[in-house]
Amino acid sequence: MKTREEIVSYLKGLRSRICEAFEKVEREGGGTGRFERKDWSYSKGAGGGEMSVIRGQVFEKAAVNWSGVEGAKFPGDDASGPFFATGLSLITHMSNPKAPTAHFNIRYIEAAPAGGGAGRRWLGGGFDLTPMGFPYDEDTRQFHDAARAALDPFGKELYPRFSQAAREYFTIPHYQRERGVGGVFFDHFSTGDLERDLAMWRGVGEGFLPALLPVLERRIAAPYSEADRQTQLKRRAQYVEFNLLYDRGTQFGFRSGGNAEAILCSMPPLAAW
Amino acid sequence: MKTREEIVSYLKGLRSRICEAFEKVEREGGGTGRFERKDWSYSKGAGGGEMSVIRGQVFEKAAVNWSGVEGAKFPGDDASGPFFATGLSLITHMSNPKAPTAHFNIRYIEAAPAGGGAGRRWLGGGFDLTPMGFPYDEDTRQFHDAARAALDPFGKELYPRFSQAAREYFTIPHYQRERGVGGVFFDHFSTGDLERDLAMWRGVGEGFLPALLPVLERRIAAPYSEADRQTQLKRRAQYVEFNLLYDRGTQFGFRSGGNAEAILCSMPPLAAW
Repeated sequence: MKTREEIVSYLKGLRSRICEAFEKVEREGGGTGRFERKDWSYSKGAGGGEMSVIRGQVFEKAAVNWSGVEGAKFPGDDASGPFFATGLSLITHMSNPKAPTAHFNIRYIEAAPAGGGAGRRWLGGGFDLTPMGFPYDEDTRQFHDAARAALDPFGKELYPRFSQAAREYFTIPHYQRERGVGGVFFDHFSTGDLERDLAMWRGVGEGFLPALLPVLERRIAAPYSEADRQTQLKRRAQYVEFNLLYDRGTQFGFRSGGNAEAILCSMPPLAAW
Repeated sequence: MKTREEIVSYLKGLRSRICEAFEKVEREGGGTGRFERKDWSYSKGAGGGEMSVIRGQVFEKAAVNWSGVEGAKFPGDDASGPFFATGLSLITHMSNPKAPTAHFNIRYIEAAPAGGGAGRRWLGGGFDLTPMGFPYDEDTRQFHDAARAALDPFGKELYPRFSQAAREYFTIPHYQRERGVGGVFFDHFSTGDLERDLAMWRGVGEGFLPALLPVLERRIAAPYSEADRQTQLKRRAQYVEFNLLYDRGTQFGFRSGGNAEAILCSMPPLAAW
């Protein structure tokens, strides 16, 4: 898997598998939500994206976005020439306050220097878990164990490094604490062996559902009170704050002239301040 | 009115008059909300702030913040030396979707160069109106007429200039449209005649309630549907997007190490995406 086409094809396939898995959770939880797809075109260059959004009973709202765009200059880097970026990005907002919010993303980027010449290619990605005020050690442990299991085949040093990076990245500076219970995060990743790097990256892609689904299974039918719901809505507000104030993906999206609806479809269905 | 003490005293007095006026609207509208005050200290220097928040029936949430802080270096400007900034900032989120959201701010700033020497002093401020999906020409006209009436005594050129600045400032780039129906906005204002500038600035301060109160009176008891409520909650989401992604006051607040609770207390009580 090395060409753009193969990478895009993997991402779209994973998108479809995740949507199917979530629809199964929705259905088995007694919900009737289905993913609806909407495509968009990249106004500043070629390509575009496909956003899939479910608004159900188990999944109050979840969005799974694939995008693949190319343009004349890498956004935010004046020394850059033509770029290509493709990725999958997902956020789940559950109805049940006891069920955490999850975020997953993998991305592949190529950027050439402005004057021409050999470009760079790098990878980024990861997944992390954010309890909405109700953290469970069992969930945190299992989620991190699954992340480690996904990464260990590609190097025992990766999980410690990427989970530390997640602790740093998913910190809300104005509260001086992590937004959730972490996970794994990597960016600008390139060892020089693209085939090997892509195998690791795909390992993260395959690792996400096994990390999240058991957590959802344990929580989506948990009893909760109206006060718990209020707690959840206030936690979601902090998620909004992080995403709009600090998240690199959001900022890259707006800077690159991305589709506003696609960038913002990760926002929670309801949030309270 | 030229000393810091006089300026702070004016701001605090105006804060109290606005809170009283809003509590009267709340009471006459059948609500029981009262402003509650919470003080905070500036962690990166001297001073702090006083935030007043009401969560009532007519005012679903409104926040009126006074702050006065000083520090060693103007935030975001490495060439700056000691600074002093004081201001009043408010946002109203009404229960009734037919009643617009209003924002008002006036601020006074002193900043000295890093090496010492004569500093600069400037003023900023303005107020603007954002219907939550239900604009009324009558409200827009009356609000702008009041803004013009507040500014005209200080120069007929001010209202056209400041209302144009508001059109530009209160634009949401990712939707390529204004967030509301405008108002007046000015920043870095200094003619060299501080006494005269402060008189205009105070004129804006005095002009806010006469601009807003008649609008509220017309709308807070208007009939509305659950669909109207949903429209309101989605409009509020765009307000959140503007404030967190683009608003200079929010960015100044976070950059200067301001109190997160005070910066974010302008956020709506509930918003939907």
